[in-house]
Amino acid sequence: MTTTRDWRGHVFIATSLDGFIARPDGDIGWLTDPPENPGHAPGHDGPNPPPDYERLMASVDHLVMGRGTYEKVLTFDTWPYAKPVIVLSRTLPATGDERITVTRDIPETLRLLARRDARGVYIDGGKVVQGFLAHDLVDEITLTRVPVLLGHGLPLFGPLAQDIRLTHTGTLTTDSGMTSSHYTVQR
Amino acid sequence: MTTTRDWRGHVFIATSLDGFIARPDGDIGWLTDPPENPGHAPGHDGPNPPPDYERLMASVDHLVMGRGTYEKVLTFDTWPYAKPVIVLSRTLPATGDERITVTRDIPETLRLLARRDARGVYIDGGKVVQGFLAHDLVDEITLTRVPVLLGHGLPLFGPLAQDIRLTHTGTLTTDSGMTSSHYTVQR
Repeated sequence: MTTTRDWRGHVFIATSLDGFIARPDGDIGWLTDPPENPGHAPGHDGPNPPPDYERLMASVDHLVMGRGTYEKVLTFDTWPYAKPVIVLSRTLPATGDERITVTRDIPETLRLLARRDARGVYIDGGKVVQGFLAHDLVDEITLTRVPVLLGHGLPLFGPLAQDIRLTHTGTLTTDSGMTSSHYTVQR
Repeated sequence: MTTTRDWRGHVFIATSLDGFIARPDGDIGWLTDPPENPGHAPGHDGPNPPPDYERLMASVDHLVMGRGTYEKVLTFDTWPYAKPVIVLSRTLPATGDERITVTRDIPETLRLLARRDARGVYIDGGKVVQGFLAHDLVDEITLTRVPVLLGHGLPLFGPLAQDIRLTHTGTLTTDSGMTSSHYTVQR
């Protein structure tokens, strides 16, 4: 798919060390509520550390996620987004939640983003990230690794038609044993 | 499997950002011969950086690998190991290469390591790492991430019967965009 677009695509996501964004049933307690472990190395910002969530959100004007991520967010106490959310789903009703716009596939999503004059898009959820990577729609990846092996779950990455080379721009670590690295996609 | 053992199990391995140790055909050129990219952040040793290969090798007296890794090593110009190598394989002939000892399964491997009074074991290759992790035979993991997404390949990690929690002890980055993190297994 050849597309021209005026926005940068940002992935900002955490996985277990074995690459899962959630357990098979969608559980992310291992990420949001990890056990205390004072044995981790103290957190350390390397040079040019990756963006935090606030800086990431400041650089985007739209979010795109799949139905799975959307339904996970619906279980939170409050709607966490102050920016427009697009939910990419073949099955979700088109109307019913005024906080979101439903699109059916990537081309429709791209047309909507173009109409809205998007400049920065936060791409979230495993399947949507995989689809956007495969269609060369991702420019920046901030990947956080949680110090646990789950053995099973929903994978972040999937098949690709060709390698995607990345440029590493910086890494930080946290007191809770997480490492975050920021990459830009090479073209 | 309950075992007592007098050795520490060390994993020291590199994967693509999507978790593969090799392409489907075993190719590791993306790791050993990565393209030049001056855009990577300069390498940075954080506090308490992970061991390098020399320090890792100094802390082990035996290596255990699978047939796939062994056959990959046979394609190298020289035999790279100065320490005894055990190749875990159900199919490889028991004799034929005096540089290795062939074992047929993990229990036989454990008996051999005990007889030899092993104190530190380098566990290499995807399937062997997966088997040793699943049998609680890994104590330390140094994991290097190469800045490329391959989309397909031989995975480092596999299914587990339960979570394995890790303690992060340190992370470094290199001029070639790699990040290495060291973990100890929590018990």
